[in-house]
Amino acid sequence: MTTMIDDPTATLNQLNPEALSSRERELNIQYQQFRLDNLSLDLTRGKPSPSQLALSNGLDEVASDFIANDGTDTRNYGGLDGLSEARQLGADLLGVNPEEVIAGGNSSLTLMYLYLLNAWHYGPPGTTTPWREAGPARFLCPVPGYDRHFRILEDLGIEMVNVAMELDGPNMDQVEEQIENDDSIRGIWCVPKYSNPGGQVYSDATIDRLARLSKSSNPLFRVMCDNAYAVHDLDDDCPDLANVMDAFRLHGSEDKLVMFGSTSKITRAGAGISFISGSRKTLHHFKERMQVFTIGPDKVTQLRHVRFLRDLEGIKDHMRKHAQILKPKFNLVQDHLSNELEGAGMGEWTKPRGGYFLSFNSLPGLASKIVALAAGAGVKLTPAGSTFPYRRDPDDINIRLAPTFPDLHELDKAIKVFVVCVQLASIRQALTK
Amino acid sequence: MTTMIDDPTATLNQLNPEALSSRERELNIQYQQFRLDNLSLDLTRGKPSPSQLALSNGLDEVASDFIANDGTDTRNYGGLDGLSEARQLGADLLGVNPEEVIAGGNSSLTLMYLYLLNAWHYGPPGTTTPWREAGPARFLCPVPGYDRHFRILEDLGIEMVNVAMELDGPNMDQVEEQIENDDSIRGIWCVPKYSNPGGQVYSDATIDRLARLSKSSNPLFRVMCDNAYAVHDLDDDCPDLANVMDAFRLHGSEDKLVMFGSTSKITRAGAGISFISGSRKTLHHFKERMQVFTIGPDKVTQLRHVRFLRDLEGIKDHMRKHAQILKPKFNLVQDHLSNELEGAGMGEWTKPRGGYFLSFNSLPGLASKIVALAAGAGVKLTPAGSTFPYRRDPDDINIRLAPTFPDLHELDKAIKVFVVCVQLASIRQALTK
Repeated sequence: MTTMIDDPTATLNQLNPEALSSRERELNIQYQQFRLDNLSLDLTRGKPSPSQLALSNGLDEVASDFIANDGTDTRNYGGLDGLSEARQLGADLLGVNPEEVIAGGNSSLTLMYLYLLNAWHYGPPGTTTPWREAGPARFLCPVPGYDRHFRILEDLGIEMVNVAMELDGPNMDQVEEQIENDDSIRGIWCVPKYSNPGGQVYSDATIDRLARLSKSSNPLFRVMCDNAYAVHDLDDDCPDLANVMDAFRLHGSEDKLVMFGSTSKITRAGAGISFISGSRKTLHHFKERMQVFTIGPDKVTQLRHVRFLRDLEGIKDHMRKHAQILKPKFNLVQDHLSNELEGAGMGEWTKPRGGYFLSFNSLPGLASKIVALAAGAGVKLTPAGSTFPYRRDPDDINIRLAPTFPDLHELDKAIKVFVVCVQLASIRQALTK
Repeated sequence: MTTMIDDPTATLNQLNPEALSSRERELNIQYQQFRLDNLSLDLTRGKPSPSQLALSNGLDEVASDFIANDGTDTRNYGGLDGLSEARQLGADLLGVNPEEVIAGGNSSLTLMYLYLLNAWHYGPPGTTTPWREAGPARFLCPVPGYDRHFRILEDLGIEMVNVAMELDGPNMDQVEEQIENDDSIRGIWCVPKYSNPGGQVYSDATIDRLARLSKSSNPLFRVMCDNAYAVHDLDDDCPDLANVMDAFRLHGSEDKLVMFGSTSKITRAGAGISFISGSRKTLHHFKERMQVFTIGPDKVTQLRHVRFLRDLEGIKDHMRKHAQILKPKFNLVQDHLSNELEGAGMGEWTKPRGGYFLSFNSLPGLASKIVALAAGAGVKLTPAGSTFPYRRDPDDINIRLAPTFPDLHELDKAIKVFVVCVQLASIRQALTK
């Protein structure tokens, strides 16, 4: 049975060659029309929009006395751990005790790099065996994932092993099998809440299995848990993430966990404060390394943040304001995708309830074509492959969409272009079969 | 000939045993009196005083629009190099072109660490041979020097070789001989202006010889130039430092030089901005590494600094205000030392015209005793040995004095205690001979 060509959601394999050709011409006219519009739109990176950034302009109106609760003059040197009230804020954010947090500078990525580099060079905290001296080193990478996580491992020459990302976190059967059978696995990257790019939230069962397997894993194994979107819900009834540190403590594997967070997507992107969290043993070891390369973080910025955000309730209030800006954007994207691609057999996508991205999977072999088509019409998408280690998406299907930065009008245009590019690439592929 | 015992400046070797004993009893009474005062004074670290920090409180009253000259929203991600106006400020400070500067975060120490770590792990900029793979690695360290410089090398396992610090910089005969005869020398630490701790300013001839020898040095050799006190003069007629980059360019060795600076002792200690400077080739290579570990520096803080300090003239005006606070402190220390120790044969000290420290050399074997005596009387001094690699001062003579943080009244007390401790230790040593 073939459907009428004027039904744009007709499942691709229901269309006969004539219908496909006709649809291709129609889509190509739309596409060429977009090209004439001289668009210049960018859906690449997870940047907050100016209106989100303006929510935190009050940061500059606080902290005028510069003196922290314990009398520390934040304008002077000292305090490797960060201000104690900043550590408390990080503890609230990550669900740990304040003594399990160090409050750092403007980049959690830098903390992740320094943690991994030091594990490579000197051994992960609690050990004295550097990864570089322990034979081949591999790392499990749930895919699709975050390009900057992969880049650090590539830089260190640590081999990356793909594991599938499911709706409730990494495929734990694959993870357990790898760790059981391969003694060279040194760690796994996790973004437990609103994972980049899919927006999945790890289930309680996933967290529990991660904590359990960490207990029996190789002594050099570590879970790198980047909780970048801990409070980035679009709604009040969003799914809760289990307390990761508590789960690890329950299984006695708390020394295998290291967590990261920041206020980059709470206050200012790249001008907020960052956190590294781990067991006391982990932090003690990491601080020995830290004292080699820093006298301490920017405590003036930390004090501003504490005075502005106050506590977890203050953060949650603040994040509701972000949600008011972001939810219409995520809804707009979902509306376009479901209206124009649902049931069309041209791909599938995630429906995150928070975070900064969604993940679109095209038909095999089409992601790079779709990205190129979109670029041709003035819409910049994250390069195909970016969400995989070594920028190699084995099926060439995954595209990360970042709807936060453009305003609604621009986003609307960009997604319309994206949809037409998906349709055009899919129809053209079907025509060649 | 023996002098009367009531002349405290009597040269030590002019005193007979009775005079020594009598003087020891007298000094000990003074010392015990200090102990009863329950002092708690700190001359350890080069921290600005609260009144110096207050000079920069205006930082918080600028940059309210957050938009840089080129339209960059400083509150958002991006800009690995730092703001262009911040790079210009760093260029003015270090005497280079803006494209030879990257403006970074709150710590130049972190930039130094990352530069060295990357040279160790991947090879210094412009090469592909990591230091770790090039056989034994040694580094020249002018002594006394800065403990945190040495600590990074110790951490990397790079062997440190002492060279003597003269009044016009490192002993260049020793430096040239080492580099000529030892192919494993990978670099030299330099603090060219108001060197830590002695406060020496490198002469034009020293800079020229450094630039010249760098040209013919091993391809893996690098000059680590920490210009932390570039504008930290106590007077308007202070000695100028030659333009370091120009000297290296003249000899064609600009790729062997890497310079660092910061505003930590201009605006806020640990909450300012930092700079790394090198040839285009050096920075291009370093940026390839940077993009692995950061998305960019805190540009809000950079914009505040540019708006507050404006330009080199603005910095110089600002530094005159620091000098008004610091000069009486440095004068006070010099007055006590010259009034009570000049010609006494109990040690010698430097007379810096800027910077944050002065360097005191006791009689051989006494530095650790003097530091311990001072601690016993409630005056904390930098641990003896700190100014040498591996914390080993071969003659146990050097003590770093940091007069900036205490107020004049406290400083006066602390230096009085210090002088008595020097005298007591020296007399006691003479008594045992």
